Amino acid sequence: MKIGILGYGNLGRGVEKAVNASRDQELVAVFTRRDPAGVTIATPGVKVLSADALQDMQKEIDVLILCGGSATDLPEMTPKYAAMYNVVDSFDTHARIPEHFAAVDAAAGKAGKIGVISCGWDPGMFSLNRVYAASILPEGEAYTFWGRGVSQGHSDAIRRIEGVQDARQYTVPVPEAVERVRRGENPKLTTREKHTRECFVVAKEGADKARIEKEIKEMPNYFADYDTTVTFITQEELNAEHKGLPHGGSVIYTGSTGDSRHVIEYRLTLDSNPEFTGAVLSAVARAAYRMNTEGQKGAKTMLDIAPAYLSPLSAEELRAHML
Amino acid sequence: MKIGILGYGNLGRGVEKAVNASRDQELVAVFTRRDPAGVTIATPGVKVLSADALQDMQKEIDVLILCGGSATDLPEMTPKYAAMYNVVDSFDTHARIPEHFAAVDAAAGKAGKIGVISCGWDPGMFSLNRVYAASILPEGEAYTFWGRGVSQGHSDAIRRIEGVQDARQYTVPVPEAVERVRRGENPKLTTREKHTRECFVVAKEGADKARIEKEIKEMPNYFADYDTTVTFITQEELNAEHKGLPHGGSVIYTGSTGDSRHVIEYRLTLDSNPEFTGAVLSAVARAAYRMNTEGQKGAKTMLDIAPAYLSPLSAEELRAHML
Repeated sequence: MKIGILGYGNLGRGVEKAVNASRDQELVAVFTRRDPAGVTIATPGVKVLSADALQDMQKEIDVLILCGGSATDLPEMTPKYAAMYNVVDSFDTHARIPEHFAAVDAAAGKAGKIGVISCGWDPGMFSLNRVYAASILPEGEAYTFWGRGVSQGHSDAIRRIEGVQDARQYTVPVPEAVERVRRGENPKLTTREKHTRECFVVAKEGADKARIEKEIKEMPNYFADYDTTVTFITQEELNAEHKGLPHGGSVIYTGSTGDSRHVIEYRLTLDSNPEFTGAVLSAVARAAYRMNTEGQKGAKTMLDIAPAYLSPLSAEELRAHML
Repeated sequence: MKIGILGYGNLGRGVEKAVNASRDQELVAVFTRRDPAGVTIATPGVKVLSADALQDMQKEIDVLILCGGSATDLPEMTPKYAAMYNVVDSFDTHARIPEHFAAVDAAAGKAGKIGVISCGWDPGMFSLNRVYAASILPEGEAYTFWGRGVSQGHSDAIRRIEGVQDARQYTVPVPEAVERVRRGENPKLTTREKHTRECFVVAKEGADKARIEKEIKEMPNYFADYDTTVTFITQEELNAEHKGLPHGGSVIYTGSTGDSRHVIEYRLTLDSNPEFTGAVLSAVARAAYRMNTEGQKGAKTMLDIAPAYLSPLSAEELRAHML
């Protein structure tokens, strides 16, 4: 199947790697809203085109993978391109999923295409695990922990503070909280009890570090509700030790059947958040193409996709070797 | 939806509990190949009927959950009843899944019914996790560990030894092997390196314990390839400490995208193997009924079921609260 990628940031690069690693997928082109001449991609021989070229390439692309941001890009981009292509996105603003779904459903349904929204690991694989667990054990509770991993949103928030040159923020689950959940205690956990935040900050020369630390720790929504540690390091240290984008976390579901208790735990430990997310998008693109070929259309999420559609293996191979 | 259960052993009792815990399911009757007069079930007011009555109850039952054994019951039972009802089974003889699937597919397809085979946790939830992981990260390897948990087959094998009055066998993953896999070492592991077997044995009075221990440890297929420990206990100790049927295990998948490594781990810790398996069968029955109502038919596995079908929640509720 022929794949297009729109947007070439960290996620677009992750999708590119995943598509190239998939034997049944071929990368047709990367599309950008910037000047294509200024964008060099990793895959030799594949074109970089202006997003405008998408008006006219329906015959050349089976699925278009949208690698924009959730805040402003995808709410506009996904319905727009779902009217022309099968599309897959990673929209992750949980509260706005219903309206995004409705907009994509209208566009894709009219065009006879499929638009799969909110793919990745959360929303995505974590959502699947919450639904599987709660469907099997209706008496129970789901806990989601994130990290240890880099939150790009929190890192950006620190960088906007005066006197900060660079920063990396790690979200870290509190080990005691994870253990209590695993033991089946079903605890009520506050925000502070679930996660801590570790900040590695490069201050500009002469900046007031005490003020920076205070501003970070008191920042509402981002840090005020957490136990936050701030460590000042040099730019060289940040470059050497904190350049990666690792992430992960776990969904732990504790439920019961009568007097019996059961714990279901799904855990991800990812060296690269954008590369893993890109790999999920590539697998979902395979499913979107197959489902559309069978006549399905409209908006979908990973909850609507039978797992077999994601696999390059045939149904017979899956039953014989994976079941 | 109206549910029937055929077979009332440990699994049948587990399904009964799960159906009663599901607000959208109603238990119509338990069917048995024994004399119904000799079978008392846990649910007040629900009938116990002879399996023969199933010839004639298509209007009263939406899904029939088959709680027979994989060795001899299900290969005959599932195709037979798939010709009359939507059915769900837990067939777990991995090597014979393709032929079982074909037989059920022929019967169910002709009858316009759905037959979902091999549901539970392995095959079942573990299979799903193997397929999701391998679909996302084609470069990688899946490891499955079972336990700590009671293997009923191995317990039975010990009980057949002369001089043994009762026995319980636990399958235990080797912690070092699990750790090596988690660290992403991709080790080649022998049978002995992956699991140990712990046997708790009640000897008959005057029996030769040394001989019993030797016979257990040398038993081909069951124990000879494992590091096995045998502990003799009294019947009272066995009754007090080993009456439950806990089980579980984990699927650990280690894969890579370029230079980045990723670990996906799915772990179950179950107080009761038959109650958890029964809960899976109940959720799959919900999916089978819905898929059949939409016009689908033939044999399916959990790989063919979109997760949303398993949940009692509506698609809108799932998107708003679980995604």
